[in-house]
Amino acid sequence: MKKVTLKSIEEARSVIKDVIRETPLIHCPTLFESLGNEIYFKMENLQKTGSFKLRGALNKIYNMTEDEKKHGIIASSAGNHAQGVALGAKAAKIKAVIVMPSTAPMSKVEATKSYGAEVVLHGDVYDDAYNKACEIQKETGATFVHPFNDPDVISGQGTIGLEILEQLPDVDIVVVPIGGGGLLSGIVTAIKAKKPTITVIGVQTVNLPSMKEALKAKHPVEVEKNSTIADGIAVRKAGELTYGIISELVDEIVTVTEDEIVNAILFLLEKNKVLAEGAGAVSLAAILAGKIEAKDKKICSVISGGNIDITTLNKIVKKGLINLGRQYQFTTKIPDKQGELAQILEIIKEKNANISFLNYSILKDETFDNMQEIEIILECKNIEHKNEIKNSLEKFGYKLY
Amino acid sequence: MKKVTLKSIEEARSVIKDVIRETPLIHCPTLFESLGNEIYFKMENLQKTGSFKLRGALNKIYNMTEDEKKHGIIASSAGNHAQGVALGAKAAKIKAVIVMPSTAPMSKVEATKSYGAEVVLHGDVYDDAYNKACEIQKETGATFVHPFNDPDVISGQGTIGLEILEQLPDVDIVVVPIGGGGLLSGIVTAIKAKKPTITVIGVQTVNLPSMKEALKAKHPVEVEKNSTIADGIAVRKAGELTYGIISELVDEIVTVTEDEIVNAILFLLEKNKVLAEGAGAVSLAAILAGKIEAKDKKICSVISGGNIDITTLNKIVKKGLINLGRQYQFTTKIPDKQGELAQILEIIKEKNANISFLNYSILKDETFDNMQEIEIILECKNIEHKNEIKNSLEKFGYKLY
Repeated sequence: MKKVTLKSIEEARSVIKDVIRETPLIHCPTLFESLGNEIYFKMENLQKTGSFKLRGALNKIYNMTEDEKKHGIIASSAGNHAQGVALGAKAAKIKAVIVMPSTAPMSKVEATKSYGAEVVLHGDVYDDAYNKACEIQKETGATFVHPFNDPDVISGQGTIGLEILEQLPDVDIVVVPIGGGGLLSGIVTAIKAKKPTITVIGVQTVNLPSMKEALKAKHPVEVEKNSTIADGIAVRKAGELTYGIISELVDEIVTVTEDEIVNAILFLLEKNKVLAEGAGAVSLAAILAGKIEAKDKKICSVISGGNIDITTLNKIVKKGLINLGRQYQFTTKIPDKQGELAQILEIIKEKNANISFLNYSILKDETFDNMQEIEIILECKNIEHKNEIKNSLEKFGYKLY
Repeated sequence: MKKVTLKSIEEARSVIKDVIRETPLIHCPTLFESLGNEIYFKMENLQKTGSFKLRGALNKIYNMTEDEKKHGIIASSAGNHAQGVALGAKAAKIKAVIVMPSTAPMSKVEATKSYGAEVVLHGDVYDDAYNKACEIQKETGATFVHPFNDPDVISGQGTIGLEILEQLPDVDIVVVPIGGGGLLSGIVTAIKAKKPTITVIGVQTVNLPSMKEALKAKHPVEVEKNSTIADGIAVRKAGELTYGIISELVDEIVTVTEDEIVNAILFLLEKNKVLAEGAGAVSLAAILAGKIEAKDKKICSVISGGNIDITTLNKIVKKGLINLGRQYQFTTKIPDKQGELAQILEIIKEKNANISFLNYSILKDETFDNMQEIEIILECKNIEHKNEIKNSLEKFGYKLY
């Protein structure tokens, strides 16, 4: 099998450079004071197709023989890999078939089709789509493009490492998301070959720590099924090839929680005006949560993708409103007497908060305590304002829960 | 008074270049097929402080005398100008006082303070803050930094024009948001001096078309007070200086509606993974709405800022859900009989839609028609799915409204 080396990554760069975008590396001054480190973002969410996957897919295609190219390529994916392979095939003018589970978000199916790929919808989960792709591959003789466990794909992703070294030559630490490990394997190979003193750290979600567990077990193991907002790195078992590279070269792997990921997505939106998907934000999540031990260092956080469903974004923005104290939801009980409802609304009015939702119904009384439950959602200015309202209500004797 | 010239803009560039970020120019391939033009975004929302305002503020400061610098600067603003002036002063190590209306979003107040400026909160609207700033200016002798009607400020904003010409030398059309007109005045001066064949178009919200009206009246006039999601360009009267430059050099001014602005913000989020504020997205809004007549052209849309309130973002994302058919809200009436509620829910269940909200109450019956009102909000997959559910319900005889 081919090896992933600095040379293979440099070759990848020369063949993919006309199609890919050299994504910006952006300094985030906001974080310096709170963290004591200089943080930079490598914005692969601004890559074409919204993620880094195009790099590996393109390099894979360029390494195929003319005969293989005639038979086209095939891949199975519910997400970023599908779009990367589809656009890669379009750029190289070869045929691509992408098998996606029929549960894949319509926006991703449409995006994949828009790059000219033939999309086959099959089964409910990724495994069904994968099996179907293997079946079609046998019939057509197309080249299967693995999302991570392939040396050409890994070399393509490694080109990000070369760009980081050029854009920030004195970087001390590079932090990279891990799903199957293709992105990290490529980046760490490039960086450690050029400058071994740079620390390279991988980040997984605590819900699916397949690479962390592989390192513990000293071989890839299957971790328990679990859901995560970082669906782009929801991989239950590391690849053999990626495990080999990462176990040899990577300095550390840390994990982040779902809440930490949501906070990182919100941070990027509010402070840096860019949209990251869950998988794309885990590297920043690890930094913000203090999981990277460092002081006075230049840290580059790879933001690997930005393909997030608008329904998920809606939930994240709502969480942001609550975190910032902009939305305050509470339930309380008020005596079933005339004027009681007016009184609580008077307190809210005096504090200049806006009512977004109110539910009060006498039908709910089942306790014979002569108290009525009331549910309220308020729009507040900030945490201080929210706490002011809370204190006011409590001073009037309302029990909030 | 100083004049804004190519030379003054080139000088501005040399003095501000170490502090500002040369923002990326990003090609948007998605739009080519639908529009027949190549669209590029100049991403000033990725500028430090989240908008272009830093450029003008910095150039103003660098053009002050040493004696003036000792007295510091003062400005009044509820938004981007406040942050630009504050960071500019910090970079130049001079004192800044920013007067903001006390209704300004806490996030903007905090951001301004975080750059080291002294923030004075005064009055409810911008005019109150402006008057207070003039008062303080008289006492302290600080230099007042006007948000747009100042040649040094305009020359600073003009540096964006020079960057566009370098990043996309064969650009045909440049589309720029207009508030007071400082950004457009600077960009059009740079571009027309370097390459007069390039078309430069300004965009305003139809709710506050102050520059468009100024051109009609042949002098700045005050337009009616109005609200807009593009609060960053909510200026009721153009500047004398900016009016003069724009009336002489700009090819055309078009206006966009609030809905068109929301669609442009959503487009940038979903397709390009970047967050724009309303004012920042009007240039793309004009392009998407077909208001720029062009074919086979290279069009650069200046995305001027990304400082959007998370409460506003929440509303925009919700609008996106409805546009995409992901959220379907309707009210209907069902007969007040056993099993009727179960029937409608059965239809929804068969169509695999998720219920987010349901409100059904016998208390609402005031019509004696034996019908009960029911309000439902569903989570759907897409427009087709939503329409399928709608058709199914109508086939069963439900009247939806």
